[in-house]
Amino acid sequence: MDRLKKQFDFILEIDKEKQIVRQNYLADGSRKENDSEHAWHMAIMALLLHKYSTDAVDVGRVIAMLLIHDLVEIDAGDTYAYDEEGQSGKQAKEEAAAKRIFGILPEDQAEDFMDLWQEFENGITANARFANALDSLQPMMLNGAAGGKSWVEHGVKLSQILKRNDVTAQAAPELWEFCFKEFVKPNLEAGKIVNE
Amino acid sequence: MDRLKKQFDFILEIDKEKQIVRQNYLADGSRKENDSEHAWHMAIMALLLHKYSTDAVDVGRVIAMLLIHDLVEIDAGDTYAYDEEGQSGKQAKEEAAAKRIFGILPEDQAEDFMDLWQEFENGITANARFANALDSLQPMMLNGAAGGKSWVEHGVKLSQILKRNDVTAQAAPELWEFCFKEFVKPNLEAGKIVNE
Ligand SMILES: [Ca+2]
Repeated sequence: MDRLKKQFDFILEIDKEKQIVRQNYLADGSRKENDSEHAWHMAIMALLLHKYSTDAVDVGRVIAMLLIHDLVEIDAGDTYAYDEEGQSGKQAKEEAAAKRIFGILPEDQAEDFMDLWQEFENGITANARFANALDSLQPMMLNGAAGGKSWVEHGVKLSQILKRNDVTAQAAPELWEFCFKEFVKPNLEAGKIVNE
Repeated sequence: MDRLKKQFDFILEIDKEKQIVRQNYLADGSRKENDSEHAWHMAIMALLLHKYSTDAVDVGRVIAMLLIHDLVEIDAGDTYAYDEEGQSGKQAKEEAAAKRIFGILPEDQAEDFMDLWQEFENGITANARFANALDSLQPMMLNGAAGGKSWVEHGVKLSQILKRNDVTAQAAPELWEFCFKEFVKPNLEAGKIVNE
């Protein structure tokens, strides 16, 4: 029963991820997205799109990574991808968060989730590279659909988008090409992204 | 490119699931949960709890089922589990919704998702029975944590909870026992559930 107690303590704790608000809006622009919605959306994207990965992936592991990778934000908060100041200090805060939150689980499962999270953060394995690509493409798609609303709010530059998507273009070139054409280009032409 | 276009049309369409509000509240009672949050939460529960299934399950398939099983509510809306009138007509509406929504995908993936959804609905395979058990336990846990708020609002009776969880008790007896003790019993004793 002690094992179950720890598991349910963790499952209740992560309910808080539903209240971690991101910078990007839903596709219809009505409100900002939260981390749990983002993770759910990407998990389905992984089911549908994993064949576009340059290197073969274990889709189950990619999905597990995507489902849990933002749990650290329950303690550390969401840092906007293009907030360069916010990035410093982020790593230490997120590591402490991972220790506390995954540490609620029974030891074996705490280790499994810590491994998944670190693999995602390191971004080296094929699974992690594809998961990172989706983590970038999903908000890009929503930003594009919502008429560039959050790009405008943050004065995002094309060069920032291209830099962030270096890995995306390597890990899933067809997805990158499609999303660039469908979601970035029209907003660049409409002046919603700073052309520099 | 046509395949990718269909896939992204679907991925954008399902963004609407984030706006399908359920009857149960988040654990802290601050607002009601939406379908995408519910699916995300259960997918992580499946990762952590699948060993408690009476019959061995393919956790990847359980997770896929849980991620997509409520997409039909984009068209058909959420029907509260204890709304007996609402249940009639539900099936036809959901079947039409499944045809339209999954039909946005390339044919092979439309079929895969339709199969997953029907397997969940039929509730016969080990995977579907365990997925259905989680679909019942997750809101029970949140209702319990939120002090029975949505049970009170709907005047839910113990007999309704027990009837709905017939399958849960068979598919995952330890989970059922734990959740009954932790989440149902205290609310029954506090008069938040009608004792009949
Ligand atoms: Ca993040």
